[in-house]
Amino acid sequence: MNNSVLVVGSVALDDVETPFGKRNDSVGGSAVFFSIAASNYTKVKIVGIAGKDFPQSTLDKFQERDIDIEGLELVDGKTFRWGGKYHDDINNRDTLYTDLNVFADFKPQIPDSYKDTPYIFLGNIQPTLQLDVLRQLTSPKFIALDTMNLWINIALDDLKEVIKKIDLLIINDQELNMLTGELNLLKGLQKIHDDGLKYVIVKKGEHGAYLSHLDENSHHPELFFVPANPVLEPTDPTGAGDSFAGGFMGYMTKSGEISFENMKKALVHAAIMGGLCVQGFSYDSLENANDEIIEKGLESLKKLVTT
Amino acid sequence: MNNSVLVVGSVALDDVETPFGKRNDSVGGSAVFFSIAASNYTKVKIVGIAGKDFPQSTLDKFQERDIDIEGLELVDGKTFRWGGKYHDDINNRDTLYTDLNVFADFKPQIPDSYKDTPYIFLGNIQPTLQLDVLRQLTSPKFIALDTMNLWINIALDDLKEVIKKIDLLIINDQELNMLTGELNLLKGLQKIHDDGLKYVIVKKGEHGAYLSHLDENSHHPELFFVPANPVLEPTDPTGAGDSFAGGFMGYMTKSGEISFENMKKALVHAAIMGGLCVQGFSYDSLENANDEIIEKGLESLKKLVTT
Repeated sequence: MNNSVLVVGSVALDDVETPFGKRNDSVGGSAVFFSIAASNYTKVKIVGIAGKDFPQSTLDKFQERDIDIEGLELVDGKTFRWGGKYHDDINNRDTLYTDLNVFADFKPQIPDSYKDTPYIFLGNIQPTLQLDVLRQLTSPKFIALDTMNLWINIALDDLKEVIKKIDLLIINDQELNMLTGELNLLKGLQKIHDDGLKYVIVKKGEHGAYLSHLDENSHHPELFFVPANPVLEPTDPTGAGDSFAGGFMGYMTKSGEISFENMKKALVHAAIMGGLCVQGFSYDSLENANDEIIEKGLESLKKLVTT
Repeated sequence: MNNSVLVVGSVALDDVETPFGKRNDSVGGSAVFFSIAASNYTKVKIVGIAGKDFPQSTLDKFQERDIDIEGLELVDGKTFRWGGKYHDDINNRDTLYTDLNVFADFKPQIPDSYKDTPYIFLGNIQPTLQLDVLRQLTSPKFIALDTMNLWINIALDDLKEVIKKIDLLIINDQELNMLTGELNLLKGLQKIHDDGLKYVIVKKGEHGAYLSHLDENSHHPELFFVPANPVLEPTDPTGAGDSFAGGFMGYMTKSGEISFENMKKALVHAAIMGGLCVQGFSYDSLENANDEIIEKGLESLKKLVTT
């Protein structure tokens, strides 16, 4: 069996405005960004829901890139839509509207052909749905999960339940604070590891990301850090976090080695995919990735931190 | 002649409250933090002003650490005082009061024995005073300058005048934005290099720091990045930026090589001194630095970013 990665998440059409331009009906959603990024490394199986208005050109793109869409339901109605406007300081944005549309009734159904997928990414959806997905799998080997402040606020118990069943939590620094009640990074990580979670990635956007696990001797968090390569024209940051996760899980799936050492390498690929994503609208820059671009990214991130 | 570094800056007594405790009459000021940090590497010559209330124990400490205080005026009156309270999120603080006292009439006089010092750090004081200092020097080899938002707002022309005469500007990311009118790091750096400045360090506090110069071929900024090692108990961040500068200039002075390559190494020492500073009130943690602690810091920062 060739390794592959399964992703469950949103599929969306976005209206996005940034200081660098504007795009309507911009194809997005966590499952889409994740899939395109991960497909630079490995076979991807997508679980999601979209309306009949979802563009055929993207479905074709999935096929081209060996992204299995058997689990992508196409139903009557409109695709999930999000509208957002980024500030001049592109780290801040306003959500203009969120129309759940067909995503409101999403009940992830895992096709039989997906059930033995070894690598799993639970994109940012309701924790009870993430639990539902896990119940349908037969032999997961490595499960990563993304979440957001909304679920920490309104579904904390469910979220804690699903966190017990995963290997890696991918969150941002504010979410770590909210989840653990600790403002200090090391204290927050210590708490979450002491509760039984093996690996955590803390995303800090343009400030890079930490990977953490418990050091076997000290029982304190041992960290690895990857910076973000500064981007001259961050055209559209939408989907950067999901592309980051796609780079990470894509590399993990391809390499097939579950260890802290290997995750360090995966984190560098995550940073490359996150950095690529912001350089275009939708998945424009991600889909242009190739071995040469990835190799250049690896070199440039290494040079950035090597004395 | 042995290399040495000259620092001009404030000498202060602070009343500091942080989530980890409180200290009154805490010895501080940019020249003090810089000197203690740099004295871990090289001979330091301090230029500043203090009142008769300045503690003898710190003057003794300077002597112990080969910090020359011929240029430290001790005059009738009170030492500069600052009172501040840090928030639970220790990245934010409120200034409770600022009493300039004897610092209000500071006119830096460079003693004859200091005038041929090769390495110069102009701490954050009025740009016209920084210019005054430069006029009194006979043979500076490498000049670094720190400044703050206040001078960018009220003395921009003077500041630009002194920036023309220096080799390295050390500022934080917000100050770079203010100084260049660019929100984007790369665009801000490009502007400042195009205006003739060779080296820039952009400090981002707990998010690390960038060192930049113009790449000879592309004429675009070439960057080196050092992360900040996460600190479990950031007891008191006061002086971290000046300790960071002290580590940088201390290493540069000791090594005596002015090149981008060598500055990368100096930046790692800067991060170590900045990280040490926050682990105690005043210069408590800085003065405990030794070869072993510095070596451990180097190893741990290297491990943090090495796959």
